[in-house]
Amino acid sequence: MALAYLSPSYANTQLHLHSSQLSFLSTHLSFHRRHSLRPLPRTRNARISCSVASNEAPVAVQAQDQKIKPECFGVFCTTYDLKAEEETKSWKKLINIAVSGAAGMISNHLLFKLAAGEVFGPDQPIAFKLLGSERSFQALEGVAMELEDSLFPLLREVSIGIDPYEVFQDVEWALLIGAKPRGPGMERADLLDINGQIFAEQGKALNAVASRNVKVMVVGNPCNTNALICMKNAPNIPAKNFHALTRLDENRAKCQLALKAGVFYDKVSNVTIWGNHSTTQVPDFLNARINGLPVKEVIKDIKWLEEEFTEKVQKRGGVLIQKWGRSSAASTAVSIVDAMKSLVTPTPEGDWFSSGVYTTGNPYGVAEGIVFSMPCRSKGDGDYELVKDVIFDEYLLKRITKTEAELLAEKRCVAHLTGEGIAFCDLPEDTMLPGEM
Amino acid sequence: MALAYLSPSYANTQLHLHSSQLSFLSTHLSFHRRHSLRPLPRTRNARISCSVASNEAPVAVQAQDQKIKPECFGVFCTTYDLKAEEETKSWKKLINIAVSGAAGMISNHLLFKLAAGEVFGPDQPIAFKLLGSERSFQALEGVAMELEDSLFPLLREVSIGIDPYEVFQDVEWALLIGAKPRGPGMERADLLDINGQIFAEQGKALNAVASRNVKVMVVGNPCNTNALICMKNAPNIPAKNFHALTRLDENRAKCQLALKAGVFYDKVSNVTIWGNHSTTQVPDFLNARINGLPVKEVIKDIKWLEEEFTEKVQKRGGVLIQKWGRSSAASTAVSIVDAMKSLVTPTPEGDWFSSGVYTTGNPYGVAEGIVFSMPCRSKGDGDYELVKDVIFDEYLLKRITKTEAELLAEKRCVAHLTGEGIAFCDLPEDTMLPGEM
Repeated sequence: MALAYLSPSYANTQLHLHSSQLSFLSTHLSFHRRHSLRPLPRTRNARISCSVASNEAPVAVQAQDQKIKPECFGVFCTTYDLKAEEETKSWKKLINIAVSGAAGMISNHLLFKLAAGEVFGPDQPIAFKLLGSERSFQALEGVAMELEDSLFPLLREVSIGIDPYEVFQDVEWALLIGAKPRGPGMERADLLDINGQIFAEQGKALNAVASRNVKVMVVGNPCNTNALICMKNAPNIPAKNFHALTRLDENRAKCQLALKAGVFYDKVSNVTIWGNHSTTQVPDFLNARINGLPVKEVIKDIKWLEEEFTEKVQKRGGVLIQKWGRSSAASTAVSIVDAMKSLVTPTPEGDWFSSGVYTTGNPYGVAEGIVFSMPCRSKGDGDYELVKDVIFDEYLLKRITKTEAELLAEKRCVAHLTGEGIAFCDLPEDTMLPGEM
Repeated sequence: MALAYLSPSYANTQLHLHSSQLSFLSTHLSFHRRHSLRPLPRTRNARISCSVASNEAPVAVQAQDQKIKPECFGVFCTTYDLKAEEETKSWKKLINIAVSGAAGMISNHLLFKLAAGEVFGPDQPIAFKLLGSERSFQALEGVAMELEDSLFPLLREVSIGIDPYEVFQDVEWALLIGAKPRGPGMERADLLDINGQIFAEQGKALNAVASRNVKVMVVGNPCNTNALICMKNAPNIPAKNFHALTRLDENRAKCQLALKAGVFYDKVSNVTIWGNHSTTQVPDFLNARINGLPVKEVIKDIKWLEEEFTEKVQKRGGVLIQKWGRSSAASTAVSIVDAMKSLVTPTPEGDWFSSGVYTTGNPYGVAEGIVFSMPCRSKGDGDYELVKDVIFDEYLLKRITKTEAELLAEKRCVAHLTGEGIAFCDLPEDTMLPGEM
């Protein structure tokens, strides 16, 4: 299956100004329409392209007159001078955290963990900027009410909104969880395009209004390529600041190695997920360690490592849906907490963690210009460096090459969204992980 | 509407031995049947009564041959010697926490908070004993898988089971969240009976196998009377150890007072919820304080306090369902964490917290022998004392009398489950809180 999309160079860049003639187009156009009221950001990706291949059902544009400024919510509308109070005067400066898809189940776990201080500790006050859609706006209010009823001492501001240009104002973290699920009969290429447009828009908004050093964690699938699109639309934010979440895969890989070796998972270290958050991902048992020893010295069953381990990691989400009837929102939220913690606390000596990051300048020979999960270490300052002392064998390299090829194909598929010309989509097979939508 | 139930004295105590003839009876009978294989516990409430008024739909008894011993799960089946390891040798002794309704949404939030150390801190290893039903057993496996995938260092054991006599073995905390929701056309009296039987059974199981000082927190509704039933069926456990959760009501009351006063909720203290977790509950603004001052000195709008405040607290759950489409699982879980923390950390000087506890010996003149939410203080040892320096006025006393009357009526309604003779049910109106089932 091959699809070609128009690049912005060929698209009518003024399309959104005439969109009242195009009522069949879906809700995200309504955002474009609003943005036409503000000056277009002056970046090389400023022109907004509109996919003609969207097979999303048309949705009536609701609440056109609704106030789009993010609204503070309830008790969070009060202004607090933390430095003036005995209990809070030693606290750090308030940190702004944006969360998209804030009315969804992953966020519902994540927000309550962040507000309880799980990532930033007991002296870091937090402001949430929750991004939803017109359709989910009431649900956002419900989430804000529950946060209010929870009396978290650290949570000092909650605002909710549907316009990323408002919600992302000054944010230091952007946790991009919201994405459209794949509808019936939708190809991965269609999903890449539909979600790609959301992430292009959010990238532009981050570029225009977020903190200049905002850390962006993309969870919505396909997360690697969504992160790439987001980054390419935010040229004023360091490319290094964009992450695609592969931490749940890493956690699951650690768990499976622990299970096989009959040890607790705190004995498993140095686990890398290489590549894409898809079925081509490579959980690396060559560099991983159990009790400080190479995995192969502990788990002698090479057949299991080579033929069953990866599948066990990948099928976890599908098995969970079968058992539990829902997707793994709680453990995904835990893995987002883990991924954030890994950037704000120093990595334990000798260990590392996986994150989908930009490949340009990587020491492994992975193709440049894509977002690829690789082993990272952090000093705890929000930044990271790639780990150099990893080894490769033929088995590992072959698999890394395959996931790299997939990400390069995905990249070609969204060229119209990254400002790199005419998109050409030729994805050979469905590589969505089971249990994810 | 009045219903009479047979007391155990009149019921055929051997009924469960012949239950194969009674296939129309619902699944909890299958538990009774199993228990007939073990010696009946020697307590004054040992005889199991079987309500004839149950209007539950018959459910096919599944998986009769399924192993009923609680099963350890995955990596948690490994045994760990925490004292032998550098990182964990300074840790406290493993604590056993049972959770019923473990496959439900409240538990799904709660378990991940407990496992992250939110209640007991970073040096308290935890073992979860998850109680489900035959029907939810697969979902329990899913929950255990997600806990495993989350790599919580403190969570060292997870076992799952459907027999409370197995699951409650040696537990130091029992968080009883599971309860049957009210079906269409079901009266509150029917709900009291159906859930009462579950809690009678669980009380017997706790009495037989739990730690002699187990703390029991009842969340499943109607939680006050369920807690009473549970306690009455566990005579060897101190009555003081049984709690019915009214902390979400307290949290919501604090939030509403903060909103009205235009302050952050950490300025609101000394809030009591008196009585039943139902619409007769009494959020007390007479004793509550804002910035250390009596509420009435800060909020001069007496009409709001007397006529709107209570309703705002009580309608919160219903509004949330309207907005968010789901019941308030996340904030309920937070309030359970708060309630547990209040018992294991010293109460801040001059403040208190609310919990539904046994009234016998209370200093307020509340009728003895019921579970009634009252103001408590704790030294942080798991125990509490009732606060003495509270004041009452006519308005407060009138409302406390009403919620007390309701709890006395509920008690009469479940006399067959507490060993106190023939039940007589005369509940005048539906007092279920909006948004709860």
